[in-house]
Amino acid sequence: MIDYRRLRVALLGAGAVGSQVAGLLLKHRAELADRAGADLELVGIAVRDTSAARDVELPDELFTTDAESLLLGADIVIELMGGIEPARGYILQAINSGADIVTANKALLATHGSEIFDAADQVGASVYYEAAAAGAIPIIRPLRDSLAGDRVNRIMGIVNGTTNYILDRMDTEGADFGDVLKQAQDLGYAEADPTADIEAYDAAQKAAILASLAFHTTVPLDAVYREGITSIDAAMIESARKADMVIKLLAVCERLTANDGEGESISVRVYPALIHRSHPLASVHGANNAVFVEAEAAGPLMFYGAGAGGVQTASAVLGDVVSAARRHVAGGVGVGESTRANLPIVPIGHVTTRYQITLEVTDEAGVLATIAGILSDGGVSVATVEQTVEPGDGTARLVIGTHTAREADLSDTVQSLAASAVVRRVVSVLRVEGD
Amino acid sequence: MIDYRRLRVALLGAGAVGSQVAGLLLKHRAELADRAGADLELVGIAVRDTSAARDVELPDELFTTDAESLLLGADIVIELMGGIEPARGYILQAINSGADIVTANKALLATHGSEIFDAADQVGASVYYEAAAAGAIPIIRPLRDSLAGDRVNRIMGIVNGTTNYILDRMDTEGADFGDVLKQAQDLGYAEADPTADIEAYDAAQKAAILASLAFHTTVPLDAVYREGITSIDAAMIESARKADMVIKLLAVCERLTANDGEGESISVRVYPALIHRSHPLASVHGANNAVFVEAEAAGPLMFYGAGAGGVQTASAVLGDVVSAARRHVAGGVGVGESTRANLPIVPIGHVTTRYQITLEVTDEAGVLATIAGILSDGGVSVATVEQTVEPGDGTARLVIGTHTAREADLSDTVQSLAASAVVRRVVSVLRVEGD
Repeated sequence: MIDYRRLRVALLGAGAVGSQVAGLLLKHRAELADRAGADLELVGIAVRDTSAARDVELPDELFTTDAESLLLGADIVIELMGGIEPARGYILQAINSGADIVTANKALLATHGSEIFDAADQVGASVYYEAAAAGAIPIIRPLRDSLAGDRVNRIMGIVNGTTNYILDRMDTEGADFGDVLKQAQDLGYAEADPTADIEAYDAAQKAAILASLAFHTTVPLDAVYREGITSIDAAMIESARKADMVIKLLAVCERLTANDGEGESISVRVYPALIHRSHPLASVHGANNAVFVEAEAAGPLMFYGAGAGGVQTASAVLGDVVSAARRHVAGGVGVGESTRANLPIVPIGHVTTRYQITLEVTDEAGVLATIAGILSDGGVSVATVEQTVEPGDGTARLVIGTHTAREADLSDTVQSLAASAVVRRVVSVLRVEGD
Repeated sequence: MIDYRRLRVALLGAGAVGSQVAGLLLKHRAELADRAGADLELVGIAVRDTSAARDVELPDELFTTDAESLLLGADIVIELMGGIEPARGYILQAINSGADIVTANKALLATHGSEIFDAADQVGASVYYEAAAAGAIPIIRPLRDSLAGDRVNRIMGIVNGTTNYILDRMDTEGADFGDVLKQAQDLGYAEADPTADIEAYDAAQKAAILASLAFHTTVPLDAVYREGITSIDAAMIESARKADMVIKLLAVCERLTANDGEGESISVRVYPALIHRSHPLASVHGANNAVFVEAEAAGPLMFYGAGAGGVQTASAVLGDVVSAARRHVAGGVGVGESTRANLPIVPIGHVTTRYQITLEVTDEAGVLATIAGILSDGGVSVATVEQTVEPGDGTARLVIGTHTAREADLSDTVQSLAASAVVRRVVSVLRVEGD
């Protein structure tokens, strides 16, 4: 056995991911040393309450509640506590004492990423976060390194496993949102409080991280437009199916080129959207994730795999630990995030996409002309209209597919439609992505 | 504009990829500097004949036939000449004069990879080759870095665009191999001499590179078992379709765990194989590539995109150039390939997989029992048998699906079948992958 230099690894957090990371660090220590060129010694695991130690098969003596002491002298700090504080404070302390950081903390990076990357830059430390954007799927390195010589024009990601599981079950079973959510909770795919997933807060954090990296621009979380999936019902899924489409919660990060030569900007948004079944993202089933990237030279690329899960996410964390160790062995300073493009982020109202508007209207002569007039006045151009008459009640249903329209125009137009005497109800308004 | 340190970049070769790389280096110089933290100055392009310069829109003065002089003083050398010599000599010269190497030369890496990586290790240089394995698809960094803390158990890759185009057209059109090959040549998807593609030499080189990286083991090209697609005909594709399968040229890199506790070994093989249509690889159409990776912790991952093309491959090359530049800026030594596992590579005869055997047999009583006896004697266990009788000519067709069998046993058994009086013809023997 080669006598490798020893590196001290401190772990913060022993939850689903943390306990797997600790277990794998101990189990595969010799193999990891060959990969890293350094012996990775797990020196301790900081937890809030050491009674947590009894739940996992790890040596009791590794556990401590004194995170600050543990951080002293660590070469690599793995932060898997989640949340903003005390994670942020510990990470900044570790950076300042010379450690490299590995974290899966998407909430922290989406809100305090700049602060952390800047602190690391100042001391030449590195921050690794492959596990923060799409679980086990390698997407950070491809964006940061493989595509560094290319220009990313668009990312469309299914980055939340819980919502994809729910939408997929609704699609395959025709079930309603509430029923599938209940199932997902019983099976452990959704939390007891599912808000972070179904209201797309989790996806929005990941979108902010992916967009920052893809466009070399700091994207604050509150610049990400966000809509969850709670309004999606069985009828909308069924209607999508008839049009050979499927509804997915998409994180869309897009580079926009102004027609007026005013330069580029970006849009970052998360919402349920229709995509055609022939699109590669449409066949991402269950709790899987996938990130579809369109780059100027490389063309379309897709990265697919498990988006969550303790052991799956641990794989990404350990890859980062090996990278951090290799950097320690190689010497040199860490290379920080390049955010020098700093493109402006446009508000959702300026974004253009296609829409599908479903209306219940009175079934009488001239209605279609009235609707068409409202759309036209609003600057929304119609691509397709399908009309079905509900038997007996004097109501017709219109499904209108638009050409590309500005979100603000569309929104105003939908208000005008809702106010029209011939419109009984705006059944749904869905964006269409993936052309 | 930031005053970046200047790095001298020398390019060897100005073919389809090289001319795109040169063009993008010049066009995006400012943006690349922001990404790399260094100004990338293209100092020259070595070609065999400078009249080639007239075909591409690049400044004449960049071209030279004196590669050796160009290499002197280069910080980063991009080798896109292809072939073994003089590429090998130039790369070794460049390494010894302190440059980092970026190459897309799969033939060279598959045959002389160890020599080149060792030379780089000795002087602390780095060798980047993202473009050598699957064109624009980022697969090298995920294998080398993202999965460095995990254990790859299997890779199944569609890594040759030409053969995937041919097999896909045969599948969608029911056309025969020769006709589709002719079409592919007319459209520029296949070379005038298509041997490297259709006989799977190209795929075998990529398999050697992927397996070396995934298993941390030097895999020489001649340890890769190789079969091309020239024997695939329309009848085999049609028969696959009936079984809800599709035929793909697969590069399979597999970790084998011995039952007798003798430790692990690996198998690397390239051949046309049946996979079920529900497998993600089955929906890789046209000239696209995809690499499906099964890792112990991460689970299944898939990487999809363009496997060839000048500008697409240039994206991967430029990503490597930026990585090389960042390393120069960061300081420190390059981290070489870790091949410390050095697992034994088993010959194809020891590999186990499932098979589909199609036979023409005499249509008489007792034939099935005879065939079953030969298979059983040969140690090949039958999973499914389907018999169809050809009208009028006293012949029946048997399609036999086997359980997992050893290749050597299967091969002997097929010889026994062919020699049997009841077998008129062995129509096809295909491996089945993807369970």
